[in-house]
Amino acid sequence: MTTAHKPLYEKVSDVVNSMIEDGRLSRGSKAPSLRKMSQQLKVSISTVTKAYMNLEDQGILHAKPQSGYFVQKCIKTEPDMPRWPAPAKTPKPIHSEKVLEGIFAAANQENFLSLGAAIPSAELMPSKALARATRQVLTRHPEDIVNYCFSPGLVELRRLIAYRTLEAGCQVSPDDVHITSGGMEAVILALSAVTQPGDIVAIESPTYFGLLQAIEHRGLLAVEIETDPVTGMNLDCLEETIRNENIKAVLTVPNFSNPTGSLMPEANKARLVDLLAQHNIPLMEDDIMGDLYFGENRPPLCKKFDKKGLVLTCSSFSKTTAPGFRVGWVLPGRFKESVLKTASALTQVTASITQLAIAELLRSGYYDRHLNRLRRAYQHQTEQVRMEVAAHFPEGTRISRPKGGFILWVQLPQRINSREMYQQAMEAGISLTPGDLFSVSRKYQNFIRLCAGYPMTEQVSQAIATLGRIAHNMLNK
Amino acid sequence: MTTAHKPLYEKVSDVVNSMIEDGRLSRGSKAPSLRKMSQQLKVSISTVTKAYMNLEDQGILHAKPQSGYFVQKCIKTEPDMPRWPAPAKTPKPIHSEKVLEGIFAAANQENFLSLGAAIPSAELMPSKALARATRQVLTRHPEDIVNYCFSPGLVELRRLIAYRTLEAGCQVSPDDVHITSGGMEAVILALSAVTQPGDIVAIESPTYFGLLQAIEHRGLLAVEIETDPVTGMNLDCLEETIRNENIKAVLTVPNFSNPTGSLMPEANKARLVDLLAQHNIPLMEDDIMGDLYFGENRPPLCKKFDKKGLVLTCSSFSKTTAPGFRVGWVLPGRFKESVLKTASALTQVTASITQLAIAELLRSGYYDRHLNRLRRAYQHQTEQVRMEVAAHFPEGTRISRPKGGFILWVQLPQRINSREMYQQAMEAGISLTPGDLFSVSRKYQNFIRLCAGYPMTEQVSQAIATLGRIAHNMLNK
Repeated sequence: MTTAHKPLYEKVSDVVNSMIEDGRLSRGSKAPSLRKMSQQLKVSISTVTKAYMNLEDQGILHAKPQSGYFVQKCIKTEPDMPRWPAPAKTPKPIHSEKVLEGIFAAANQENFLSLGAAIPSAELMPSKALARATRQVLTRHPEDIVNYCFSPGLVELRRLIAYRTLEAGCQVSPDDVHITSGGMEAVILALSAVTQPGDIVAIESPTYFGLLQAIEHRGLLAVEIETDPVTGMNLDCLEETIRNENIKAVLTVPNFSNPTGSLMPEANKARLVDLLAQHNIPLMEDDIMGDLYFGENRPPLCKKFDKKGLVLTCSSFSKTTAPGFRVGWVLPGRFKESVLKTASALTQVTASITQLAIAELLRSGYYDRHLNRLRRAYQHQTEQVRMEVAAHFPEGTRISRPKGGFILWVQLPQRINSREMYQQAMEAGISLTPGDLFSVSRKYQNFIRLCAGYPMTEQVSQAIATLGRIAHNMLNK
Repeated sequence: MTTAHKPLYEKVSDVVNSMIEDGRLSRGSKAPSLRKMSQQLKVSISTVTKAYMNLEDQGILHAKPQSGYFVQKCIKTEPDMPRWPAPAKTPKPIHSEKVLEGIFAAANQENFLSLGAAIPSAELMPSKALARATRQVLTRHPEDIVNYCFSPGLVELRRLIAYRTLEAGCQVSPDDVHITSGGMEAVILALSAVTQPGDIVAIESPTYFGLLQAIEHRGLLAVEIETDPVTGMNLDCLEETIRNENIKAVLTVPNFSNPTGSLMPEANKARLVDLLAQHNIPLMEDDIMGDLYFGENRPPLCKKFDKKGLVLTCSSFSKTTAPGFRVGWVLPGRFKESVLKTASALTQVTASITQLAIAELLRSGYYDRHLNRLRRAYQHQTEQVRMEVAAHFPEGTRISRPKGGFILWVQLPQRINSREMYQQAMEAGISLTPGDLFSVSRKYQNFIRLCAGYPMTEQVSQAIATLGRIAHNMLNK
C-alpha cells in the first residue's frame, strides 16, 4: 500500500514513528501536544487524536491523564513469556498462609494501590444498571427479598445462565445450574461433591491460590501438573500422574488461567475430558474469566465435550458484573444431588435480592453491550500494565501475554525473592501477589502476579515504576 | 379481689368462662360475636375485644380470620412435656439424608403448607423497612454495592452487632465480630476453626440437624449428650463424656434449642463455660433464636462467662429480619484468625448490599419496635399451634413448652413412626420434620418438629387437624 492510499491519521502515525526512530522523540519523553501536532501537520485535532489513540493501542504511545501522550519506554522489545521447570510429582497437603489476608486487607484501604487482588475497578462495573435493576426488584418483589430463595436458586436466573452457557458450547437446562454465594462456594461445593478428606487431586502448576485453599479446607492432597504458559495443563504429564496415583479429581482453569493467562486449546479440552472419562475421574473447571476473552469468540468449556456428566463447571459474576454481589454458580453434571446436600451444610441458600437483581440485569439487552465494553477495557489495561512492567522492571523480566482476563504472571530475575518484594511493596502502599502462593510446594519464588483490574492512571503507572525500582534495588543489593 | 374492683373486660371474660364451664359454649364451638356479646352485656365492642384477646392469650379462645372467635378444643389439659431416654455415649460419624431437601423444596412450593422448615412468614418480617433501607443504600452508596466488602465484614454492621450483644451480657468490640453469609456459614467457620476431620465433638440430643450436617461436612464424629426438655444439655453427663473421650469441641443451642425449645439456665451456662475452660475445650453456641425470648429479659450468652476466649457464638438475622438476606455472624473469641482464613476458602466475603441494608435498618429506631412485635407474634403463634396439636393429636402426645423461638417438639405415641407420618403428610401437601433427623443415632423416631413461623390461619389449623388424623390412623392400623 502506498502512502497515497493511507488514511490521514496513519500518515500522522508515520510521522510520530519516524520521530521516535531517528531520536527526535526519545523513549519516555512527552509527544507533541495534540494542538501543536495539528498545527505543524495541518490536520485536524481529531485526526491527531485518532493517530495517537492508534499508536497507544500498538503500545507505542501512552496516555497519562491530564498530562498528554508519552512515548513508551520500551517499544520494540515485546517481553518474553515466563518459563518454569516441571513441578515435583508427589501428592502433598496444603498449608496456606496469612499473607493473603494482608493483600485483601490492603484492597480494602483507600490509599493503597491494589495490584495484588484480582478485583475489577468499580468504575468498570455496571453499578448504575445494577442499582436500577435492584430498584425494580424492590418495587416488583418487595416480599421476595426477605424470603429464602431455596437451592438450587432462583429459577429465572438459572434459566438465564443456562442460556448464556450456549455461547460456551454447552446445552444445559436450568435444572443443571446451581446458584452459589460467589465463585469460591461453587468450587467448594464441586470439590466436596467428588472427594473425601484424604483424597488426592491433580492441579495445574501454578494455579489460583483459591483452589489451593479449597483443597486445604477439604483436607485433600494435591499433585501439581506441569503447565504451559500458552496452552495450560500438560496432558501427557497428567496422563502419567493418573497412571501412578489414585487421582480422585482434576482441577483446571482452562480459560485464561489465574495466574498465567493461558488458554487451553479446544483439542486439548476434548482430550482432557476424554482421558478423564476413561478413568471415571471428575473434572472441576473454573471458568470465572471465560467471558473475558480478547479474541473474536468465546472459548468453549471443557463441559462441551462431557458425555458422562463428569465435568463440574464453576463460575461467577464477580469479574464481570459485581464482585460484591456474591453470586456464582456450578453446573454440577451428574453430581447434582451431592452439591445440593453440601450446599445445605454451608450457606444453605444464596441471598434473594442479589439473585433477583442479576436476573433483572441479564434480561436487559444492556448486559451484552456492557460485556463488550468490559472485554476491550480489560484487554487495554492488561496491555498497558504489560508495557509499564516491560519499561520499568529489570532486564530478564518475563511477562505473560494473556488471551483474556486481566491478570499478569511476571517472572523476575532468579535472585529476586517475591516475598521480600511483597514486603517492600506493601510498605510503599502497593500490593502484589507473591508467586509461591500459587503452588503447593512453594515454587515460583521469583514470580509475582499483577492484576490489571484498574484503568491505567498516573498513580498505577507510578506504582509499577516503584515496583520496578524495588526489583532493581533487590538485584543490586 | 372482689368482682367490684375488676376491670370491665375481666367481667366479660368471667361470663365466657362460666358459659364454657356450664356447657353453654361447647369445646370447638364459635363464641358469640363481638357485636352480640356487646349488646347482651351492655359493654362496648372494644371491651369485648379486649376480653376475647385476653382469653386468647390464655389459650381459652382462638381467633380464626374472617370467622370470629372459637372455644379451644381442649383448654384445661395443658399437654405434658416430651421425655426421651438418654442417648448412647459412643462417638459416631454422621450420614445425613435426602429427606431434608424434600422439606425445603416443599417450602418453596406455593400450595404447600410448610410446618417442616423453620421459616418465619414473610408478613412477620420488616419487608417494607428493609426495602426502604435498601433504597437508601442504593442512593447513598451506589458504588459500594458492586465492591467487595472484605472479611470480617462491614465495619458499621460489626459495630451495631457488637452493640446489640451488650443486651446478651457480653462486651465485644467490632473487631470481635465476623460477618458471614447466614447462620450456617457462621457454624461451619466456627467448627472448622476448632476441629480437624476425624475429631470428636459433643452435641445435645436432640439437636438442630444443621449442626449435624456441619459436623458431617467437616468429617467429625459426634457424641450425643443427654438433654433436658427444660434446661438443655445435661452437664453431669457432659462432664463424664469429657473424662472418657477426647472431646475437641462442644456444640450447644443454649437459648431456645431447636428442636426442644429448652433454655439453659444462667447458672448452667456459667458451669458449662467453666468446665470447658478447665479442659481447654472450645464451645460453639448457636444463638440464632436468642433475641426471640418470650420472657421479660434477653437470656445471656454462654460467652458472658468466657474468660479464655474459648466460646464461639454464632447467630444470624434469618429468624428476626430476613431469611433471604443471608447475613449472619460469628463472635470467634480467640479463633479470629482461623475463622478469617477458613472464610476465604468458603464464600470469601458476604454480599455488600445486604450488609449495608441491614446496618441501615439496625441504625433506625424501628428495629427494636419490630423485635418487640415479632416476639409477641411468635409467642402467640407457638401457643396456638401447641393448642391445636393438643386438640387434634392422639392421646399420649406430648408437646414442648418453649420459652422463646417458634419451634415445637412433639412426642407421639410410641407406635407412630414419624418418617411414615412425614410421607403421608407430604402427600397431603403438609411438611413436617421427622424426629430422627435431630439425632446421630436416628433416635426420636416417634417425634416430629413443627414450626410456628406462620400466623394461625384456617389453613394452618386444618393442616394440624389433618396431621392429627394421620396420626390417629397410624395408631389404629
